[in-house]
Amino acid sequence: MAPWLTDWRGRFTGEAMAIASPASTEEVSALVKLCARHRVPIVAQGGNTGMCGGATPDGSGRSILLSLRRMNTIRRLDPEAREAVCEAGVILQTLHEAAETEGLRFPLTLGGKGSATIGGLVSTNAGGTQVLRHGSMRAQVLGVEAVLANGSVFNALTVLKKDNRGFDLKQLLIGSEGTLGIVTAATLKLLPAIGERRVVWAGVPSLAGARALLLHCQDVAGNALEGFEVMPQQTLHDVVAHLPNAREPLAEPHAWHALIELVAERGETDRLGELAERMLASAFEAGLLEDAVIASNERQADDFWLLRDSIAPAEREKGPAVQHDISVPVDRMPEFVEVAVPQLEAHWPGTEALAFGHLGDGNVHFHVIAPPGVEPLEWMTGDGKKISAEVYELVTAWHGSISAEHGIGQLKLDELVRLGDPVQLAMMRAVKQALDPHELLNPGKLVPLAPAAGSH
Amino acid sequence: MAPWLTDWRGRFTGEAMAIASPASTEEVSALVKLCARHRVPIVAQGGNTGMCGGATPDGSGRSILLSLRRMNTIRRLDPEAREAVCEAGVILQTLHEAAETEGLRFPLTLGGKGSATIGGLVSTNAGGTQVLRHGSMRAQVLGVEAVLANGSVFNALTVLKKDNRGFDLKQLLIGSEGTLGIVTAATLKLLPAIGERRVVWAGVPSLAGARALLLHCQDVAGNALEGFEVMPQQTLHDVVAHLPNAREPLAEPHAWHALIELVAERGETDRLGELAERMLASAFEAGLLEDAVIASNERQADDFWLLRDSIAPAEREKGPAVQHDISVPVDRMPEFVEVAVPQLEAHWPGTEALAFGHLGDGNVHFHVIAPPGVEPLEWMTGDGKKISAEVYELVTAWHGSISAEHGIGQLKLDELVRLGDPVQLAMMRAVKQALDPHELLNPGKLVPLAPAAGSH
Repeated sequence: MAPWLTDWRGRFTGEAMAIASPASTEEVSALVKLCARHRVPIVAQGGNTGMCGGATPDGSGRSILLSLRRMNTIRRLDPEAREAVCEAGVILQTLHEAAETEGLRFPLTLGGKGSATIGGLVSTNAGGTQVLRHGSMRAQVLGVEAVLANGSVFNALTVLKKDNRGFDLKQLLIGSEGTLGIVTAATLKLLPAIGERRVVWAGVPSLAGARALLLHCQDVAGNALEGFEVMPQQTLHDVVAHLPNAREPLAEPHAWHALIELVAERGETDRLGELAERMLASAFEAGLLEDAVIASNERQADDFWLLRDSIAPAEREKGPAVQHDISVPVDRMPEFVEVAVPQLEAHWPGTEALAFGHLGDGNVHFHVIAPPGVEPLEWMTGDGKKISAEVYELVTAWHGSISAEHGIGQLKLDELVRLGDPVQLAMMRAVKQALDPHELLNPGKLVPLAPAAGSH
Repeated sequence: MAPWLTDWRGRFTGEAMAIASPASTEEVSALVKLCARHRVPIVAQGGNTGMCGGATPDGSGRSILLSLRRMNTIRRLDPEAREAVCEAGVILQTLHEAAETEGLRFPLTLGGKGSATIGGLVSTNAGGTQVLRHGSMRAQVLGVEAVLANGSVFNALTVLKKDNRGFDLKQLLIGSEGTLGIVTAATLKLLPAIGERRVVWAGVPSLAGARALLLHCQDVAGNALEGFEVMPQQTLHDVVAHLPNAREPLAEPHAWHALIELVAERGETDRLGELAERMLASAFEAGLLEDAVIASNERQADDFWLLRDSIAPAEREKGPAVQHDISVPVDRMPEFVEVAVPQLEAHWPGTEALAFGHLGDGNVHFHVIAPPGVEPLEWMTGDGKKISAEVYELVTAWHGSISAEHGIGQLKLDELVRLGDPVQLAMMRAVKQALDPHELLNPGKLVPLAPAAGSH
């Protein structure tokens, strides 16, 4: 069992009574009924590549670890309806490949696509770099099948574009991290495959300038705008130093850099080249750009994206860091970063704070790198923890979220209890108790069960 | 109080202890707390133009009628973020007009737009003719403020494009018809205003042919396809006979007719004329069209839409009818209509069954007109009721919904109990009891409180 009792980042290790790997919804249902009868907690697990320890059991050894990986069938892929019914254990990349063979695509991707499963992505409402245009996992889910705490099967896989027969219960299961039910399958939306793309690298004088550029791109390119990622100059510098043979896309340094992707669906009249040119020309004219370059071929486009995707490893070279997956209202993100970065660096001398990521979603990855020479573990569990608390307090004061993409799991439960809105926490508890009265589904994750003493 | 104690269609009349019309969220909260203390049920009401009696109190006279109409402020309309924060009592048309002055639009409209309120539209997850492209109300709602059963205020108005801090509780409030909380405000998504449109009238040999044409239009026009409505020849004939100076758009009769709208956002390069021509030319070539005409100007486009919007009044002239707002999976809709129409007409001699509406949403309005000469009320409450039961059984057998757009209210509660999925009904009950343990919020609507005896 060992490989499944520790999360992939090695932060959490638990114990389990047994691991069960059922091959069908009926088997999951039978297992849950058995567990319910004997009051055995159940921790569901997909690819075991979550970010918050949501799929790792606690240390009591009382739980069953329920792996969905054997439920890995794409039950149906309907090119005409543009829908796929995937079992929970289907790996994201497998779905990508299956869609591609039909001239379609599934418009959600992320670093862990080779291991992340559909069940895990649904249960955590996963994000990625395409949320700007297509939304998170929730927006891709048309139907859900799940086994509830008493073993009954919630079957809402059939897609009805309109259905007003009561509460939209599948919405409750999406993002609930296995605490309300165990997702066994989902019906997912597919889109026509991409016909062409244009990738742009742009230099701007500030993060506020990056946001102005984003608004301009949305105005000009509309639905063609698929991605808009940002990073500061120092981060780009570190990435280029880290990658062999890499170079900065622009001749001069700029305070901030934006990576912009435009796409057109297969079959659309070729207009992307003209659109990209027009978008940049009018941006220059409006003073929104210092410099920009359009990737001249697919290879260069991939190189641009590699710079973005290498931020995490490049940063790791610089030392230990506390990482925060946070969001604030989109229009306030530049201001937030401008306030938070110097504040954190001033409070914690020697640290380096950096923000990069999905500006268009109001979601940045906000990392604080330790001062040189500290003992990593000691720093992470000491100052690092205090720094995180300060970041989350700041985010909360700005009406933002302490978890934009990654969920709560066990990693952030304390902070959710401390900083969450008491009305919403109480509602969550009430719903949890109603649907899982014996607290058998993924206990200790996501839902703050004890009333938050002293919460504000 | 009288005008608010009867629903606008005159089907339901109730009694109330009093009517309260608070002017702020704080006042709603104070009122709900008072009611909670004294166990007084609360029926929330917006424009009082719902279709299922969801906003009409029962006959006991124990309830307070809570009218949201004084909460009619658009708190914020942000053209840059393309968001509007509307209080519950804002009338849909008022929002349309406010958006228009900013070069924007709110992409949901329906017949009752001059009376329907934002609170009512959110609480019933309203639909309309633009769902094909833009989705129902749920898809337009970015944030919700609501007063819960204990008077506490659920505030999730701030828009975070990404937020994974637990269950998405606002989804539970959307479409819950005032049974889980009283929606006091919502943050809504706005879009760029429409720059131009092209309206097409097309004749096709069958409903299956209409669906094939729809798929073709989606392939060719993509996001430009804003509406796709269908009606049979007999219905078009009745409408033309009903409207003064109207005429059929095409020279010859066709078994089915489709009304197709393409739109382009303001600022988009003019390409709609060419797109419409290309879409139709390729459809002719593929044998998907018998005949088609593009409205030559806005006046003719309006005339085409008037034919669609006059189906209900035209049909009323033909006598009493039972009406069903139903959906089935989109790809099975043609088959469903082809089976259901002759079956109903055979079982109930002299009736005329007709289906029209939103083919692209799998949602048709399925009406059965009484045989000539019957006594209306007697027929409606006798055979009419049995016919409805048969329609709903058919829909259920086809994995469809007995309420696509209009909700359940009190009109369809019995049928929901009879035909609903027991697992989902049990889940609804559990959630309702958790969030409104004393059953004070809109009792007798939507949620089947007693376990469904003998349900299948």
